[in-house]
Amino acid sequence: MESYEERVRNIVNHLTPPREVLMNDCSSSSEEQILNSNETSSSSTLTWNKQELFEYLEAAPQHIKVAKKKLQELLKDPIFAPKYNMNVQQWRELTLQRALVIIKAGAISLAEFNRDPMKYLISMEMLNLVDPSLSVKLGVHFSLFGNAVLNLGTEKHHIKYIKDIDTWKLPGCFGMTELGHGSNVQGVETTATYDKTTQEFIINTPSDSAQKFWIGNAACHGQACSVFAQLYIDNVHYGVHVFIVPIRNADGTTAENVRIMDNGHKLGLQGVDNGRLWFDNKRIPRDNLLNKFGDVEKDGTYVSSIPSKSKRFGSMVAPLVGGRVLIAASALNVSKMALMIATRYAYSRRQFGSKGNEIRIIEYLTHQRRLFPMIATSVALSFAVEKLKRIYCEPNKSSQNVKDLHVWSSGLKAVVSWTKTNILQLTRECCGGQGFSSFNQIALFKSDLEIDMTYEGDNHVLLQQVARNLLVELQKGRYTLTNPNHDSSNIHDYDFQVQTLKWRESDLVSTLSQKIMAQLDQGRSLEQGWNTCLDTITLLGKAFVDRITLEEFQLGIKNAPSSLKAVLELCRNLFFSWKVNEDLGYFLCHDGLATSTAQKIQDSINVLCSDMLPIGLDLVNSFNIPEQFIHAPISKPDYIQEFRYGLKRDY
Amino acid sequence: MESYEERVRNIVNHLTPPREVLMNDCSSSSEEQILNSNETSSSSTLTWNKQELFEYLEAAPQHIKVAKKKLQELLKDPIFAPKYNMNVQQWRELTLQRALVIIKAGAISLAEFNRDPMKYLISMEMLNLVDPSLSVKLGVHFSLFGNAVLNLGTEKHHIKYIKDIDTWKLPGCFGMTELGHGSNVQGVETTATYDKTTQEFIINTPSDSAQKFWIGNAACHGQACSVFAQLYIDNVHYGVHVFIVPIRNADGTTAENVRIMDNGHKLGLQGVDNGRLWFDNKRIPRDNLLNKFGDVEKDGTYVSSIPSKSKRFGSMVAPLVGGRVLIAASALNVSKMALMIATRYAYSRRQFGSKGNEIRIIEYLTHQRRLFPMIATSVALSFAVEKLKRIYCEPNKSSQNVKDLHVWSSGLKAVVSWTKTNILQLTRECCGGQGFSSFNQIALFKSDLEIDMTYEGDNHVLLQQVARNLLVELQKGRYTLTNPNHDSSNIHDYDFQVQTLKWRESDLVSTLSQKIMAQLDQGRSLEQGWNTCLDTITLLGKAFVDRITLEEFQLGIKNAPSSLKAVLELCRNLFFSWKVNEDLGYFLCHDGLATSTAQKIQDSINVLCSDMLPIGLDLVNSFNIPEQFIHAPISKPDYIQEFRYGLKRDY
Repeated sequence: MESYEERVRNIVNHLTPPREVLMNDCSSSSEEQILNSNETSSSSTLTWNKQELFEYLEAAPQHIKVAKKKLQELLKDPIFAPKYNMNVQQWRELTLQRALVIIKAGAISLAEFNRDPMKYLISMEMLNLVDPSLSVKLGVHFSLFGNAVLNLGTEKHHIKYIKDIDTWKLPGCFGMTELGHGSNVQGVETTATYDKTTQEFIINTPSDSAQKFWIGNAACHGQACSVFAQLYIDNVHYGVHVFIVPIRNADGTTAENVRIMDNGHKLGLQGVDNGRLWFDNKRIPRDNLLNKFGDVEKDGTYVSSIPSKSKRFGSMVAPLVGGRVLIAASALNVSKMALMIATRYAYSRRQFGSKGNEIRIIEYLTHQRRLFPMIATSVALSFAVEKLKRIYCEPNKSSQNVKDLHVWSSGLKAVVSWTKTNILQLTRECCGGQGFSSFNQIALFKSDLEIDMTYEGDNHVLLQQVARNLLVELQKGRYTLTNPNHDSSNIHDYDFQVQTLKWRESDLVSTLSQKIMAQLDQGRSLEQGWNTCLDTITLLGKAFVDRITLEEFQLGIKNAPSSLKAVLELCRNLFFSWKVNEDLGYFLCHDGLATSTAQKIQDSINVLCSDMLPIGLDLVNSFNIPEQFIHAPISKPDYIQEFRYGLKRDY
Repeated sequence: MESYEERVRNIVNHLTPPREVLMNDCSSSSEEQILNSNETSSSSTLTWNKQELFEYLEAAPQHIKVAKKKLQELLKDPIFAPKYNMNVQQWRELTLQRALVIIKAGAISLAEFNRDPMKYLISMEMLNLVDPSLSVKLGVHFSLFGNAVLNLGTEKHHIKYIKDIDTWKLPGCFGMTELGHGSNVQGVETTATYDKTTQEFIINTPSDSAQKFWIGNAACHGQACSVFAQLYIDNVHYGVHVFIVPIRNADGTTAENVRIMDNGHKLGLQGVDNGRLWFDNKRIPRDNLLNKFGDVEKDGTYVSSIPSKSKRFGSMVAPLVGGRVLIAASALNVSKMALMIATRYAYSRRQFGSKGNEIRIIEYLTHQRRLFPMIATSVALSFAVEKLKRIYCEPNKSSQNVKDLHVWSSGLKAVVSWTKTNILQLTRECCGGQGFSSFNQIALFKSDLEIDMTYEGDNHVLLQQVARNLLVELQKGRYTLTNPNHDSSNIHDYDFQVQTLKWRESDLVSTLSQKIMAQLDQGRSLEQGWNTCLDTITLLGKAFVDRITLEEFQLGIKNAPSSLKAVLELCRNLFFSWKVNEDLGYFLCHDGLATSTAQKIQDSINVLCSDMLPIGLDLVNSFNIPEQFIHAPISKPDYIQEFRYGLKRDY
């Protein structure tokens, strides 16, 4: 055996290459050596039927599967083939033409929006995989404008508008956001003043900060807009209401007393024609008020079944919850697609090692630690997102359903969109230069979906909704506090895992409560106290989502075909260890874990990654993303062939 | 005083708004209340001369300041005005025209590259603020192709090429990366076989994986390429050498025995015409070998002063270090610019609160915790990056300089580019929808600079260089291990701070050494052991950069005008607390901090943010970024005015 000194010398020699050489030192090790160097894998024989896992993750009833297949066929139309090299005008035109193909086929319709929301959701998710501009453009028209007509309007509106919406005869916009007011919708400045002499509303933009801003379809194609405005009758203010306002004539010219400007070039979603709107004493008939929650009679009498202004407002924005559900679901799909692309590349791309036998880059621990925890996280989130979709589509929602829908959609929209952003970043980097090429798909999603964190509710604002709900539950005595578990011998035991995540959430909610109390004791207002705690509030929102994700995952494992349980459990363990590791400072500072347990959890990550190594490729290939949507050349088994001379990609 | 039950009821009432309302509850608090609700600020009277801080951060000698001003004047030419709405061809044409303006003015030249590298660097940094495609296109031509001619070639090459390079008569490419080989440059497949009968080299692309890939200027404008190829003479292999190979004729047609394809649309840098190259028995004269480190005589005799192939290779890639220096410097500039834009917006944008008196969004703790630590980090990094630039520009480098340059450029390129990516993400989100608009500048940088993490050395590979150097130092007995400091009473004391960061680095380097030893004990190869430790290696690389950043910052504070010390110290404390907080799990798991100290550090962040609140705007306005380059409408004092009706931005 070598002496210590000999070994040191040996190491120093190995570690002293020419200083400027930009590579690591694995130049002599073969792939097999590296494979063997991993910790003993307990999962080396893990196998399952890929189609079975695909279908279990897909979790769709039969009629939806049929609809999906039909839409998949439609999406084989060459107009949906990838195309990137366009200026804004070309992007918008292509997106419009794509939208018209969908509409002509009746693949998306408002008629179905309420009747079979799951089918609607899943169709929109699929369009998002093809072209996010397309799904957003149609989403503005159907999920926002159409949804307002459907769920804030009454029969007269349904009769007048639904057919024209379904045929794109009346392309719609959603006029909520103003330059000066995004998150604070209740603060919009646009006014709607009732003129009883003519039985019209007069819509006005009182200042430049009141211009409607970022309005999808407004720059080019929209003809009507559901405008959020403060209602005034005889100088009395009745709060925010929604009105149908014509903004363009059928020939495409701008309507009278409306001014339109273009929002211009953006980071992504170039195909969506976002615009800005001003109204100058724009008169609209009394019938154009979407009057389900509040109406104005001919003589100017205001009638509503909901007396409180803010509760009325709440009812009016309630239908927007669908947008958050769709963002969470779409972000998860895109995460999976990016992981499929990057993981396939990682198992075929080789770099360093002996000539002719270079090492697959997935063998590098840094690569494993970037991809595998995110694969596990995507699988974990599948079950919580699926549950959210089910609650959203529940036709007769209990009051618990309604509350869960609000809290879960807020929390999951925020956490899944951030997770997706993180995954797109990691996969971009894992693919190196190839990740920068539009042809490999990650780039477009990175640009287009960046706005996920902002629209349909800023993520930080949404997490406040989650925290507020938990605090109310605590104050009402409906929240059970959990103790930490300091003596777990098995960190892979679900009971230990869930207790650990429950403890963190519970510790955060009671900390939050105490901190706010302390602020009140110091004579500060609740609002001041709330702002002082926004860091805790954000952590609490995320902790809640982690906990429900773990719980839903465990339910999913319980209900899974037995052949899938082992691989799902591996994912659950990695998800858990990764999540705890990310927040280890909190657990240790607040005595939520013993240091030895924390260390065990930290150490488990590399072992779980080793377990994942033999099956990582099979796992992403079991993801419920139809192969048809993956065209990245680096995702193909022989990526070199995809770049052979003469094979052109002029798009 | 209220009873506990009354207070609870009060809170529950406040916290139970209509469930769907997408806003927080601060609707009744005025800005003043929120301001007062912050912890007592010790810095409320902190003032300094903004110009003084600007100049201290700029740190440029007088002749460079003059050159900067001159370049700033040139950059007022309308061709440099922002423009985004273009397809790839238009982007490339505009970038070329911009490049020609720079070249015609002689603002960047190879002649100066070695003579005054600091001036060259700073000029390139400035171009990057205007248009990263422009700086990258010129960077490929000068810093890569030209640098190869200058520093790998000899006098005959200088005489033949330098003038034509400086005038763009000979636009150049840098043919290092191949489809199959990015990080592993030594593994390139392209061959250069010497034919002594004609005294020519025959350049060949033996397979599709050997095609030169991502070659800037290759798709459209390049006429010559410095090609990295394996040299063979009489079937003997001499390792990688660099050759000047013509790829286009002066009329723009493709040269004989060369095939070119386009890399196509990318996430960013659309103005750079990246292309792919194949060589088919392309014959070039013997003189086209850049022969500074190895030459072939007429009769085929190989001569070199460096006997080892890999050392020779090291010398050939050594000049590339400048690219890493430039990436670090440019990434820091862009970070500062993004922070200036987002911070100015945060101090003027208002949302929620009582009507007519809404709260500036910077008042929200979540906003402060995103922007302020990054402002502090940017200031901190300024001094380390400045030091790196000074080492790089040192005309007579000591061997310590050479080593530091390698390690510092590797570490800082990785850490600063990741920090920049994080800052662009945070500022994008902090600006909400406005962050998504190209007009507000963050979007373009987000797309264009995404590749920073990959080119000029993948960040993970670069951090291995840092770790390897530290391990060698340890093994050679030149690394002093540091003990943790468990009883600090003042976390704002520099000695405590630096000891804490030194301990982490030292703990990681000794852990790494032990882990590798243990692997060797188990019979594994050094390469296997190295791969098993890649997670520790990455942490170590980052820990090293944090430590040198803190040390350089402290030196910068020591040397600063006394009026600037207080604000710089505030930044240092926030930088330190943030960095430790990010990695608290490590400190606590490895007993590097007492739990009570860890908690103190955690708690300090909100207090330091409060201290920053009154001065955050002044601080970013003192950043050394010329106002001329900031055109984002949201960065203007009255951003609403920037969006008034009729003010068009058709670019």
